[in-house]
Amino acid sequence: MIDIPDKPILLLDEKRCRNNIKRMADKAKAAGCEFRPHFKTHQSATIGEWFREHEIKGITVSSISMAEYFCNNGWDDITIAFPFFLSQINALKVLNQKCSLRLFVNSVRDVKLLSENLSNDFRVYIELDTGYTRSGIPQNNNDLITSIINACSEISHVHFHGFYVHHGGTYQAKGIEEIKRIIAPTLSVYQEMRQVFPDAKFSLGDTPSASVLSDFDNVDELSPGNFVFYDWMQTQIGSCTLNDVALFVLLPIAQVLKVQNQAILHGGAVHLSKDFIENECGRNYGQVVRYTRENVISEPAYITSLSQEHGILNATPDNVQDYVIICPVHSCLTANLHSFYLTADGKKIEKKVLS
Amino acid sequence: MIDIPDKPILLLDEKRCRNNIKRMADKAKAAGCEFRPHFKTHQSATIGEWFREHEIKGITVSSISMAEYFCNNGWDDITIAFPFFLSQINALKVLNQKCSLRLFVNSVRDVKLLSENLSNDFRVYIELDTGYTRSGIPQNNNDLITSIINACSEISHVHFHGFYVHHGGTYQAKGIEEIKRIIAPTLSVYQEMRQVFPDAKFSLGDTPSASVLSDFDNVDELSPGNFVFYDWMQTQIGSCTLNDVALFVLLPIAQVLKVQNQAILHGGAVHLSKDFIENECGRNYGQVVRYTRENVISEPAYITSLSQEHGILNATPDNVQDYVIICPVHSCLTANLHSFYLTADGKKIEKKVLS
Repeated sequence: MIDIPDKPILLLDEKRCRNNIKRMADKAKAAGCEFRPHFKTHQSATIGEWFREHEIKGITVSSISMAEYFCNNGWDDITIAFPFFLSQINALKVLNQKCSLRLFVNSVRDVKLLSENLSNDFRVYIELDTGYTRSGIPQNNNDLITSIINACSEISHVHFHGFYVHHGGTYQAKGIEEIKRIIAPTLSVYQEMRQVFPDAKFSLGDTPSASVLSDFDNVDELSPGNFVFYDWMQTQIGSCTLNDVALFVLLPIAQVLKVQNQAILHGGAVHLSKDFIENECGRNYGQVVRYTRENVISEPAYITSLSQEHGILNATPDNVQDYVIICPVHSCLTANLHSFYLTADGKKIEKKVLS
Repeated sequence: MIDIPDKPILLLDEKRCRNNIKRMADKAKAAGCEFRPHFKTHQSATIGEWFREHEIKGITVSSISMAEYFCNNGWDDITIAFPFFLSQINALKVLNQKCSLRLFVNSVRDVKLLSENLSNDFRVYIELDTGYTRSGIPQNNNDLITSIINACSEISHVHFHGFYVHHGGTYQAKGIEEIKRIIAPTLSVYQEMRQVFPDAKFSLGDTPSASVLSDFDNVDELSPGNFVFYDWMQTQIGSCTLNDVALFVLLPIAQVLKVQNQAILHGGAVHLSKDFIENECGRNYGQVVRYTRENVISEPAYITSLSQEHGILNATPDNVQDYVIICPVHSCLTANLHSFYLTADGKKIEKKVLS
């Protein structure tokens, strides 16, 4: 397939990746939702272009630097899905001249600060906390929600657009039914709020819900990110099958320890990230797979321990002496650690590290 | 001090960093040890230069790309402290023409492969496993050790140099006495092996032992890396005080959640890494500190949860509204995620991401 490299390499399955994009775009279209994919997972202008074939106009990012990068690569309608804070103002002033922005605000003060500093039109989301308790405004804080919407309505170049929920709770689910159970209260909140705010758009951010829901009656927009690659965690959650995963890491084997039934991989926290999932035997920092263009099959081996550059594999591979292919636990964090993707046919795809 | 940035910034205290370098260099000198610092922590040619003031000649790295980077920045005596594996050969051929190499081998086959492909002289370490059970050869595998040393002695341009131990077990210690207890068996092994291999050099790699031991009778070389910055984990292990830590991360506060007594930081796994330490209340992904040039004092607040870009702080800071300063849990992994350091006087220090 490719020469064995002297270091860990991020492998991208272009076909599976394009299939994931097409499947989600088709799904959003069929549900009558606007598809505004989150680009934080791939951080690549090239992969971004693959979305254009599906008439995607607007995208989602989570930082100023990501917005700048994709704006400079021809995207002119960008949601920054992260709470606005004061020191972003100067960068936002510049971006507001170059593209259409949608921003998350948490107070009337945010609206005023932004409107005083940004001269062109921009849109406002209120991020709702429907139980995940990360960022956003609690769903039942009607006074604050109404005051923000009223503040927007008083300023001609500020447009209240709608509500956004990223329910990270679905990433703790085990199975499709549990994903649906966790996201159900959010959908009920959306249904109720639609009565109160009939002009608002209702947006959903998490990959598990976007992947498994079939009923999007109360949702107007989808902006998942991880689905572009998926990963081992998403297969365990139930968002996808292993055959949908489009991102892998090739790790050279540095030493085989037959007595311990272990192998030392050249692949550590700086290549995979330290995200893990618990399984019956302990922590899994990366799942070994047999990978072909036709099939991805999990092997009875995974990374049990990670230091900066070493990974310990809990079994010596029988067939392969030189390397293993790992399905990463969390593709967003793994991709973030690398500066390019290599496709199965040897094409190098540039990406940025935009944290 | 500096303007509040719109994204997380890696802060380097140059004075504390230079003090850490000087302290370790002086200690090695006083103990009669060669100081071959590990450069994987800082990954910066500029910081590398600060070591030259202490007559450092040789350095340690953990990958081919780090060796190439520092070789291109004027270092001509480099240990690659990672098991040699086959696909490194082509890169090593080139490096062997440009600098003096010390390599880790695990078999007679490794020695033969290297000697057949590398035309200039090079040195060989045997990495010993003295109980940490990561890479290396078990200390009591005398047959294998002897056969490797004999294989080296038969080839004129291959020089067996000595033994190397990185005992990662000391990173699990709580306090100076426990560090000493964990490293003691390794020092006993070195004492015994010195009788059998009187010409060999004995090298110690971990930061905790190098930081707290005072007796280096059976050690010839020290190659710690983390000590250049230290971090919150090292303060808990007992390797250093908080006032020795030279690396911090400035994280903008994105949202204050007064009801929950929490704050949302613009700072996630892509800025800090997902390494954590357990404390009495749960996981600590980053410790808030009050940082001045004179003092670093821990505040009763830390990051309790991390997603890709969000960090959740378990207390709303009273004095500071715009940002917090975090002492990272594991400075090696945190530094690896950033492309530059900013010093307290606003100097930008370039670094590489060399994974």
